[in-house]
Amino acid sequence: MTANLVLLSGGVGGARLARGFEHLEEVRSTVVVNVGDDETIYGLHVSPDVDTVLYTLAGVEGPQGWGRAGDTMVLMDHLSKLGVDTRFRIGDADAAVNVYRTMRIRAGDQLDEITAALARTLGVRSRILPATNSRLRTEVRTGPGCWLPFQEYFVLRGHRDEVAELRYAGAESATASPGVVEAIRSADAVIIAPSNPPLSIWPILAVADIGAAMRDARRVMAVSPLFGGRALKGPADRVMSSLGLPPGNSGVLAAYDGLLHDLFIDSLDAGDAPSLEQAGVSVHVGSTLIAEEDRAVTFAGRMLEVL
Amino acid sequence: MTANLVLLSGGVGGARLARGFEHLEEVRSTVVVNVGDDETIYGLHVSPDVDTVLYTLAGVEGPQGWGRAGDTMVLMDHLSKLGVDTRFRIGDADAAVNVYRTMRIRAGDQLDEITAALARTLGVRSRILPATNSRLRTEVRTGPGCWLPFQEYFVLRGHRDEVAELRYAGAESATASPGVVEAIRSADAVIIAPSNPPLSIWPILAVADIGAAMRDARRVMAVSPLFGGRALKGPADRVMSSLGLPPGNSGVLAAYDGLLHDLFIDSLDAGDAPSLEQAGVSVHVGSTLIAEEDRAVTFAGRMLEVL
Repeated sequence: MTANLVLLSGGVGGARLARGFEHLEEVRSTVVVNVGDDETIYGLHVSPDVDTVLYTLAGVEGPQGWGRAGDTMVLMDHLSKLGVDTRFRIGDADAAVNVYRTMRIRAGDQLDEITAALARTLGVRSRILPATNSRLRTEVRTGPGCWLPFQEYFVLRGHRDEVAELRYAGAESATASPGVVEAIRSADAVIIAPSNPPLSIWPILAVADIGAAMRDARRVMAVSPLFGGRALKGPADRVMSSLGLPPGNSGVLAAYDGLLHDLFIDSLDAGDAPSLEQAGVSVHVGSTLIAEEDRAVTFAGRMLEVL
Repeated sequence: MTANLVLLSGGVGGARLARGFEHLEEVRSTVVVNVGDDETIYGLHVSPDVDTVLYTLAGVEGPQGWGRAGDTMVLMDHLSKLGVDTRFRIGDADAAVNVYRTMRIRAGDQLDEITAALARTLGVRSRILPATNSRLRTEVRTGPGCWLPFQEYFVLRGHRDEVAELRYAGAESATASPGVVEAIRSADAVIIAPSNPPLSIWPILAVADIGAAMRDARRVMAVSPLFGGRALKGPADRVMSSLGLPPGNSGVLAAYDGLLHDLFIDSLDAGDAPSLEQAGVSVHVGSTLIAEEDRAVTFAGRMLEVL
């Protein structure tokens, strides 16, 4: 029997889990990817999370969690000589993808069509859908009245600032890209990847018809991004805390307020299980480390068994 | 005494003549460059003639008459792998200039400011002004009702097609970029470079206030692009002929209808001199080969003597 799965994904964590599922023949998966991180950089439309998923599933991802393995920086070097601020590093193969995306957007094509074409070119089997073709941008309030574009907060300022508030500009009028709502409605389970809940998953849920479809989903399973209460990398625990969510996996459960049927947490957080179970969610404890491909495949298999 | 010169220029020929004048200390020159060849390629705003002038004056021009010497093609190779048509070749250093230009245009900056910044970065002494900051595009009619964008005619189709008619889309509402009209009015002489008259110079003269200023210019000296009645490279003679201009330098004189006080022609065309003189223009016969820098300097010196 084939399991139809939908994976809601940010960048690295979701990409790695998606890679695990891509190895399971009995799974048909649709990866719905956050576009709140999208930005115009060097005049190019960059979609960092979409590209991380594409590159990871194609096996060409960069070791740092962005860009491509072994990419050259010829264009950056030349831009730098022209006095352009090149702290946002885009390698040449990565730049070509962004040039391609930007050309097609200007020609009137939609993000989902462009993503599908890139997936075909890169030889990716899973279906990858940007959450929305509409313009939606995560913005981060770090001080009174002070809203930063996501990439300025995340890349240029190294996500050091305390996050007081988030907003998803454009979300109110955004609609799910074609196929997303149908995929969620017909999925045997929707899996929320071990991505940063407020920064990577909320911007997906902020699209009204995706949020509504999620409330009707047959089964929603989340994988916690926490290990011993902390994110492996990135600011998930700090952001959840500064936004007033409870610490540890109670915070993850609260972040997905009423949506979850199952929560997969790491063995390091086994102590969180009783209170989570009491809150009415099925808790599955075990290693949730999926950085290496074989571990991701094993973990995906475990999720499938639970399902 | 300093001579104030304005040079009207297309790509290679004008760039080479401008390089000659850049070596003469007693000359202050402003190069007014055609932008009718500008195009959006790979989503980037390319200004081929402006860049040829910039690169030639900076001594980094490509040997083929476009792009930069020793440039790499990393971005083109990656775009090509994505299935993008990369027949319009843009090297990486050249691409960086176009990315820079496009970023600044999107940020609301004008072509003349961007050109000035590039000239500073590249260490160019002459003032280089795009003819207009307005959108002006040369279009080429090659068949009944069939108008091609300039770069499609010139680069992609290799300027093989017979040119039945030209138009300069946007010229009717275009205005000269800041400083152009003042430079022409105060110039001791305006020099029309040995560029293609219909394809490179007419789009400059099509800007109404430039055309008007030229009719009032103190002295207008043109350098013929013909050698034995033919262009060294490119389709100048064929285009002039298919547009109904007389053959040889009579065609050049007619192309600049009533504007010229002086015409510099090559020794190969000495036979054209009598009829040209009869038409009321001062003719100067000698070698007009300026491909090599020292010859360009010598030729520029000769023009200055005549002046």
